[in-house]
Amino acid sequence: MSVTQQISDFVTKTQIGEITARHIAKLSLLDWAAVTVAGKNEPLTKIVRELAAEECGAKQAYAVGIETFIPARMAALVNGTTSHVLDYDDTHFAYVGHPSVAVFPAVLAIADKIGSDINSTIDAALIGLETATRVGIWLGRLHYRRGFHITATAGTFGAAAGCAKLLGLTEDQTHMALSLAASKASGIKEQFGTMGKPFHAGMAASSGVEACLLAQKGFVAGINAFDGVQGFGVTHASEENAEAFQNLGSKWIFEDVSHKFHACCHGTHAMLEALELITGESSFDLSHVQSIEVKTHPQYLNVCNIQSPVSGLEAKFSYRLLAALGLSDIDTASPNSFTDDICKAPELVALRDITHVVTDGSLSESRAIVKVTLAGGNKLEASYDLLDLKTPKERETKVRAKARSLLGGEKEKELWNTINHDKRVDSKYSVTQALLA
Amino acid sequence: MSVTQQISDFVTKTQIGEITARHIAKLSLLDWAAVTVAGKNEPLTKIVRELAAEECGAKQAYAVGIETFIPARMAALVNGTTSHVLDYDDTHFAYVGHPSVAVFPAVLAIADKIGSDINSTIDAALIGLETATRVGIWLGRLHYRRGFHITATAGTFGAAAGCAKLLGLTEDQTHMALSLAASKASGIKEQFGTMGKPFHAGMAASSGVEACLLAQKGFVAGINAFDGVQGFGVTHASEENAEAFQNLGSKWIFEDVSHKFHACCHGTHAMLEALELITGESSFDLSHVQSIEVKTHPQYLNVCNIQSPVSGLEAKFSYRLLAALGLSDIDTASPNSFTDDICKAPELVALRDITHVVTDGSLSESRAIVKVTLAGGNKLEASYDLLDLKTPKERETKVRAKARSLLGGEKEKELWNTINHDKRVDSKYSVTQALLA
Repeated sequence: MSVTQQISDFVTKTQIGEITARHIAKLSLLDWAAVTVAGKNEPLTKIVRELAAEECGAKQAYAVGIETFIPARMAALVNGTTSHVLDYDDTHFAYVGHPSVAVFPAVLAIADKIGSDINSTIDAALIGLETATRVGIWLGRLHYRRGFHITATAGTFGAAAGCAKLLGLTEDQTHMALSLAASKASGIKEQFGTMGKPFHAGMAASSGVEACLLAQKGFVAGINAFDGVQGFGVTHASEENAEAFQNLGSKWIFEDVSHKFHACCHGTHAMLEALELITGESSFDLSHVQSIEVKTHPQYLNVCNIQSPVSGLEAKFSYRLLAALGLSDIDTASPNSFTDDICKAPELVALRDITHVVTDGSLSESRAIVKVTLAGGNKLEASYDLLDLKTPKERETKVRAKARSLLGGEKEKELWNTINHDKRVDSKYSVTQALLA
Repeated sequence: MSVTQQISDFVTKTQIGEITARHIAKLSLLDWAAVTVAGKNEPLTKIVRELAAEECGAKQAYAVGIETFIPARMAALVNGTTSHVLDYDDTHFAYVGHPSVAVFPAVLAIADKIGSDINSTIDAALIGLETATRVGIWLGRLHYRRGFHITATAGTFGAAAGCAKLLGLTEDQTHMALSLAASKASGIKEQFGTMGKPFHAGMAASSGVEACLLAQKGFVAGINAFDGVQGFGVTHASEENAEAFQNLGSKWIFEDVSHKFHACCHGTHAMLEALELITGESSFDLSHVQSIEVKTHPQYLNVCNIQSPVSGLEAKFSYRLLAALGLSDIDTASPNSFTDDICKAPELVALRDITHVVTDGSLSESRAIVKVTLAGGNKLEASYDLLDLKTPKERETKVRAKARSLLGGEKEKELWNTINHDKRVDSKYSVTQALLA
């Protein structure tokens, strides 16, 4: 059975119950919605929105920041791009890709178009998220190292899978949608550091929508387009890891997704988590802190070790200042915390100046160890590895806290409520609008 | 200077005068318009049109078969797909790609959007056609053999170049559009034999439009996205043939493009041309024909040597029956000629049965040699190589004849007139509608 057939099988035949992955998918949706709304005024977001407004058209789906509804394909492009513009969305380390930004905007666009409720939307999205993860593992590191932006490539298949599910496509139609996705899945890493990167997420979402709408109308694509001799795997340097599709439908690899909890360089997150463990467990006066030692993998030294940052942007790449923020209980989850002013605040600069960064090549890249020495010689120490997953409940607490810091408490409560309770009144209900407006 | 910069230079700085390539571009436009209109009722065309009709939207551009104008991006998708659906459009053998189906629909969509006249439209299209050809040569056979559909990949860059020209983008903006095109250019050969293949042409055209409209709004893409270390060339198995961009702006490689003159398998075209030479030079009664010998490269034996075809489709792959059609002056340029009935017509079957196909491995793949033996032993012989380009004037005669057989004499005259004389009345003039409606 070809991979495309396996996925088609999975998409069309799986029944989803109250599984952990579904809970995690809800968290990701909350998280995704939060970072999307928070990104609504970025320059790139405005550009894509402007294009959509000009294209205008059939009022099918809600797109963040646009008053009238727009075509589903375009809404997916706008929302997908917007949701990755801050680069603050979730990451799955099994394939180093961002599943939510490709899948949710696609599935939501279809949800609006056909008037779905929140529950079927989440079910379909989970199918897509798992597909994106599995395809990402199938493509593997070789694909990523060659230069393909795996968020976009794997994401296109995930988006198509999710939309196919929500539209209720037949197995044949789903197979066609995934096969057509093999022609649309694209995006290269040479765009990193430019608007191209977030735009890729929008492309993936939009392509998933388009592939499914065409398949629904009878589009015929090559049945081996994904893993045939001239298919996507061969052309796009896939490792073709066969085990990537094992236990599909019973095991949910997606649920190991990592949410970002700090609006700064990923290399500093383990340190901030370790500091949170220290401040959570002990209570001490900041004036008693004598020194702070941060131990990290040496690869980060030329990435996020700016000694004395002077701008909010530089602060995001400074272990020393971030250690000061972490100890001082400043909200590192909020992008608004990273101002030029924090670089000059005397109490923060004082803590920064007693922070020392040391490296240890034997440390895992995802781990940091922090030692805080207090007056009198008392030492507080904590270690944290980003791959140490918390329980779903603990993750819920952290994701909700992040959403609160991005959107405010009331909006976060409303969002979480929308995700957990069906509010659909009729076929004109827009689940996307309920989430993003 | 990077390749993208070289192309940006070429796009923004070239002034086009009355050069041969421009004449050839007009022929290609006529040819492209003819095959597009002829393809308007194919199943795939209807599917894509339906999607566009649903998306509806801003009334920017004409799309074949749709009454109201639609967004430019969508019009390019519809017209590009439609124009490749018969696989009867031009081919450039320097890269084995179809330049017109990617470039014209893109440039025309922009022309409608901004109200351009025919002349500036053709100028811009030529920039795009040359760019597609050059990029195709840069990508090379390796890219194509790996499985990438070079019509779509090279075509995306060509479409972007043409649209940038017509929009009057600055050099920086043009560079950005081409760099963004590197993220959108896609399409794999595993789709051959399905709707995927012609759809790729629409994708390329639409992506070119989208990249330019975004660049015009300030989109920032990676400046090395085309030929950087993780750029399109590396990821997409390009040969990176540096000479591909030599003499850009002074030499027009595009002009060697080949138009298809027979609505049947390409492997039979050299034979049909050789027969045309024979019937053009000698006049004889068909009842006097004793035997017909067709010499061709052996690779075609399992492609287009059906001995006794029974359907119109099979007739397109039968040297023997096609030789009979060619001698009998039946219009092989018209898809309508290929009916089941011609397979049974006694006078054609008689000629078919005295036709013998022989092979010669030393013959070029693009050549055929035909010998007609008449009663009394008189032998008429002709040889033809598809790469032997005729003069532009001879090509004009043949392309116009093809267009007449597809559309009728009156429509062809009107089309050629539209291409040669500016009919623009005001900024609402639609050059696409003038060509395709």
